[in-house]
Amino acid sequence: MIVVLKPQTTQDKIDHLVGWLNNQGIQIHLSVGSEYTIIGLIGNTDKVDVELLESLDMVMAVRRVGEPFKQCSRMFHPEDTVITVGNAKIGGGNFCMIAGPCSVESEAQILEVAQKVKASGAHILRGGAFKPRTSPYAFQGLRAEGLTLLSEAKRVTGLPLISEIMNVNHLPLFEDVDIIQVGARNMQNFDLLQELGHINKPILLKRGLANTLKELLMSAEYIMAGGNEQVILCERGIRTFETYTRNTLDLSAVPKLHEISHLPVVVDPSHATGEVKLVPSMALAAAACGADGLMVEVHNDPAHARCDGAQSLTPEQFNKLAAQVRAVLEVIRS
Amino acid sequence: MIVVLKPQTTQDKIDHLVGWLNNQGIQIHLSVGSEYTIIGLIGNTDKVDVELLESLDMVMAVRRVGEPFKQCSRMFHPEDTVITVGNAKIGGGNFCMIAGPCSVESEAQILEVAQKVKASGAHILRGGAFKPRTSPYAFQGLRAEGLTLLSEAKRVTGLPLISEIMNVNHLPLFEDVDIIQVGARNMQNFDLLQELGHINKPILLKRGLANTLKELLMSAEYIMAGGNEQVILCERGIRTFETYTRNTLDLSAVPKLHEISHLPVVVDPSHATGEVKLVPSMALAAAACGADGLMVEVHNDPAHARCDGAQSLTPEQFNKLAAQVRAVLEVIRS
Amino acid sequence: MIVVLKPQTTQDKIDHLVGWLNNQGIQIHLSVGSEYTIIGLIGNTDKVDVELLESLDMVMAVRRVGEPFKQCSRMFHPEDTVITVGNAKIGGGNFCMIAGPCSVESEAQILEVAQKVKASGAHILRGGAFKPRTSPYAFQGLRAEGLTLLSEAKRVTGLPLISEIMNVNHLPLFEDVDIIQVGARNMQNFDLLQELGHINKPILLKRGLANTLKELLMSAEYIMAGGNEQVILCERGIRTFETYTRNTLDLSAVPKLHEISHLPVVVDPSHATGEVKLVPSMALAAAACGADGLMVEVHNDPAHARCDGAQSLTPEQFNKLAAQVRAVLEVIRS
Amino acid sequence: MIVVLKPQTTQDKIDHLVGWLNNQGIQIHLSVGSEYTIIGLIGNTDKVDVELLESLDMVMAVRRVGEPFKQCSRMFHPEDTVITVGNAKIGGGNFCMIAGPCSVESEAQILEVAQKVKASGAHILRGGAFKPRTSPYAFQGLRAEGLTLLSEAKRVTGLPLISEIMNVNHLPLFEDVDIIQVGARNMQNFDLLQELGHINKPILLKRGLANTLKELLMSAEYIMAGGNEQVILCERGIRTFETYTRNTLDLSAVPKLHEISHLPVVVDPSHATGEVKLVPSMALAAAACGADGLMVEVHNDPAHARCDGAQSLTPEQFNKLAAQVRAVLEVIRS
Repeated sequence: MIVVLKPQTTQDKIDHLVGWLNNQGIQIHLSVGSEYTIIGLIGNTDKVDVELLESLDMVMAVRRVGEPFKQCSRMFHPEDTVITVGNAKIGGGNFCMIAGPCSVESEAQILEVAQKVKASGAHILRGGAFKPRTSPYAFQGLRAEGLTLLSEAKRVTGLPLISEIMNVNHLPLFEDVDIIQVGARNMQNFDLLQELGHINKPILLKRGLANTLKELLMSAEYIMAGGNEQVILCERGIRTFETYTRNTLDLSAVPKLHEISHLPVVVDPSHATGEVKLVPSMALAAAACGADGLMVEVHNDPAHARCDGAQSLTPEQFNKLAAQVRAVLEVIRS
Repeated sequence: MIVVLKPQTTQDKIDHLVGWLNNQGIQIHLSVGSEYTIIGLIGNTDKVDVELLESLDMVMAVRRVGEPFKQCSRMFHPEDTVITVGNAKIGGGNFCMIAGPCSVESEAQILEVAQKVKASGAHILRGGAFKPRTSPYAFQGLRAEGLTLLSEAKRVTGLPLISEIMNVNHLPLFEDVDIIQVGARNMQNFDLLQELGHINKPILLKRGLANTLKELLMSAEYIMAGGNEQVILCERGIRTFETYTRNTLDLSAVPKLHEISHLPVVVDPSHATGEVKLVPSMALAAAACGADGLMVEVHNDPAHARCDGAQSLTPEQFNKLAAQVRAVLEVIRS
Repeated sequence: MIVVLKPQTTQDKIDHLVGWLNNQGIQIHLSVGSEYTIIGLIGNTDKVDVELLESLDMVMAVRRVGEPFKQCSRMFHPEDTVITVGNAKIGGGNFCMIAGPCSVESEAQILEVAQKVKASGAHILRGGAFKPRTSPYAFQGLRAEGLTLLSEAKRVTGLPLISEIMNVNHLPLFEDVDIIQVGARNMQNFDLLQELGHINKPILLKRGLANTLKELLMSAEYIMAGGNEQVILCERGIRTFETYTRNTLDLSAVPKLHEISHLPVVVDPSHATGEVKLVPSMALAAAACGADGLMVEVHNDPAHARCDGAQSLTPEQFNKLAAQVRAVLEVIRS
Repeated sequence: MIVVLKPQTTQDKIDHLVGWLNNQGIQIHLSVGSEYTIIGLIGNTDKVDVELLESLDMVMAVRRVGEPFKQCSRMFHPEDTVITVGNAKIGGGNFCMIAGPCSVESEAQILEVAQKVKASGAHILRGGAFKPRTSPYAFQGLRAEGLTLLSEAKRVTGLPLISEIMNVNHLPLFEDVDIIQVGARNMQNFDLLQELGHINKPILLKRGLANTLKELLMSAEYIMAGGNEQVILCERGIRTFETYTRNTLDLSAVPKLHEISHLPVVVDPSHATGEVKLVPSMALAAAACGADGLMVEVHNDPAHARCDGAQSLTPEQFNKLAAQVRAVLEVIRS
């Protein structure tokens, strides 16, 4: 961290500031120039209150040099992290297709979808049991029963499972789930993240609707700081002023996250766009720009889905999309 | 809800759609015009999937007529809700000043601040015990001990307490807290909201950084749907593209919320701006535009605060501000 | 347009409103339901003041059914518009690669870049002569001299030209330019758009940093309303809260614009991302999601470019990218 | 400006970078620390390409120390600028009330409004002659005739005039206009700003819907760089994700702009909110947070206004508001 002092700051004031920083365990490196004096902060500056520093009268500017995250940073861990669940791998050049319905609704539904997406090449089955809904009056998922049906689909198809958790008290119900998803609205539910840092299972962490990439990485850091290094990042669209699309899928997040972090990055085009017409285009674009995987909603009967039918592909649409995605991957890998 | 059909939609298709809606318990009111056919949906349309309707080929547009919230709507409850805690009242023309430190740090600190803000006219004492922090490496609050110190300050000063909850499992620790605060990052932690709907205590619900007023009201609805009607809304700044200020305080939310809801609206200028220089201006502006209260951070020694010192007023600054706020209130009430 | 009246609106008030609308040349279609009364407005509602209607006490809601644009709408013109300049075609399945430096700097520079991008398969040469810069102290382009150098490059390579106009008084200087570009900051410079509606040359209209797709189409409508139907839309990134990337490239705009308009859509990954590392990924993604063309900055010596060197590919990087783009196009067309 | 180099950067590379900077006329101040090497850039760094520097492999971070604007900065001009037109003063403790219709529509209309707002204490008359409209099919203003009618109102009432310019070629028509307004959509029409830098009249510069305060000040700098130092800044609402209000009025911009610039800051609550119900609240809030003036739309017959009737106060509403504003000003000045 660098602190730039205003011209004409007295030596007294500089000494006082340096002492205050030393008391916090920070070494300083003073550089007196003809125009301004620069104080370089050396050591662990995580606990320095940047905004307080900025508010001091003698301070012209405070500038961070490094990033506040460590374990998820590529600087300290140059190789790609590869997550393995069953036969599926995510990251480090391994592309993973996750598919399934928004909500688990019945045994027949989840089995049919699971078998069809497997036949089309999906590696992991998704299905919501606990559903975060904006309205208290909307369908909230089959809850524990939904997880039981997912297990049945796993037994039949052999596909590993991913499902969303909303409450840390539900963790015992997720034993058979292979990847635990943290939804966009819980990305900064720090208590939940901390608990997930203590388990031994991959976590798929969705970017919040209005969270920066830095905040996404800080939330990954919460999980990793607890000891769980298996984190998958997920871009699912951000909130902007545009109203023709539900959210704005930020695909530049994919190469940017790859630059600064070693964690795999998956894209969810279904929630980002909210409409079937846009899902295939955005899925292909995600594959073209280097995503490590896709999470796509597929429903055997979208018109009667209890949740998000408008964004669910039919198994036939998914089958066609999966083949095109594989072809795009071949192009960009060649 | 109104569904507008495309010109040249066949009668067959219309019948099919009407049947599908009837099956969901919806009555319809068909109006065939020369240019387009309009279907008015009558009955409880909460569970109709708007996006699915929009995705049908025959549908030109779907337009909601009413709002998806009910209990917090002024349409169904025209009188202002007034919340009473101890001697303090919020709403219905009662202005409430909430003040105190970002974090409770020690007995001496919280007692000094509590006594001073009381002397300046504060009605309720705020103090954080569980702190949501973006970084896992930052100070996370004194937790249970912090709540004990708050109780002590309440015993000494008689001021009712407000403090933030982050995990529903902590609820037993909040017995002596008079108003439970849900922070911006948990505004859509629906499991937490549902639990708070079953207790008998006022909830101060902060607007999320990127949440619309409609979503804020839907989250209030989650609490009220459980039976707890004592909800206070809090505007605390939203995320925009501007970088000179930490957040953008959306003061037009105050009169707009008053128009559509009967719940009281409090403004937090400290978190919105993040810097002491801006807090008094924004506090006065909030009072001028009709807010039902202010929540202001006050610290006896901001330079050594363990959290958010840059945005904390000194007791002297708060004393001056409180007097000006009272004078502004007199003007707008006259 | 549909106006929904509040329950209990008296017949007197309804008659008054209907009369007021009739006076504006609007026919109405009244539909009295058990819950609410709906007024359908028939005829040219372009001049009806929606916000005024909404502000009337008796009105619950006003909902637009159609879109305010006409000439650029696919509803009134189902076939794709194809723009032809020289041997290049844009739209209707024709993909067009536009490349060249941010600014024209010298004869040697523009000739070298033009010849190299042509060899790599570019169809049109871009080059800025008049540069909109945020700072009055930054390089503003070679202006008229820049256009002369572009003409020279066109003579030598045969590539058609595209260049940005900032002031309608400069139009005579653009005689040899084949496509006139309107920059993002001038997207709502309505006087400029109106003038460009009266010339007989294709216009590439960049989306403003904070403009919705609807506004982009309304600006296209300004040009088309004057008689010039040759408009190319360009997505170049929008402003969001994210700070790790310069702008957020909104690729879902591509399929969405194709759905509602017949105009071709080109993507500019260089300005959207602002850094070379992200340009190829975003260019490939744009091709994968159906863009009709790409506009990419290429400079023979980025380290010494007078403008936007950080986002300029070298000719070698462009050559590799162009080949990959062609391969992706083959996949999505198959 | 400060450039932080990555650890292990070789001396060769450092020398090369320093040479490259020296060639641009920049002096450097090298500071080699144990963790990283810092290069301080001394001299005029306006033309240094920050993004190019950031893209160099050896560079960890580039941080601006100062601001890119100079003439509008309070650092170089500590005293408030006061603008005088006729008997009205804006800035430096002088509060100015600007009022009038959105569009000039007829002699009777403008005279009636002008006389009434004058009687209520307005200091300056506003009225649009050239209107920027999103749709080419909407009323575009009376143009030259509107300016003639404004002159007539000025002659009758003695009120100075403000009106918006959209095209620099119209400047000769604005001879009798006292303050020239640049609208939000033209805030970065740099050619227009440059021309207005050469005239001797105050310019009211509206913040663009999605422009940062820094960009607003850079646009003011464009005008001042030409020699015209009479610039008034105007906050009129920014674009956010919120849809219940037309724009989000950013009132924290008022004290923030006062901190960094000496230019007066006026607030337009009419365009920001778009509805009469919100205008008085936001006007009072603006006065309470230190604005130097208000610009409010007033129409003698809002229901028949040709433009923006929904946001126009009646003269009676304005009269009441003006009195309340004066009372709030007394409070905050005491």
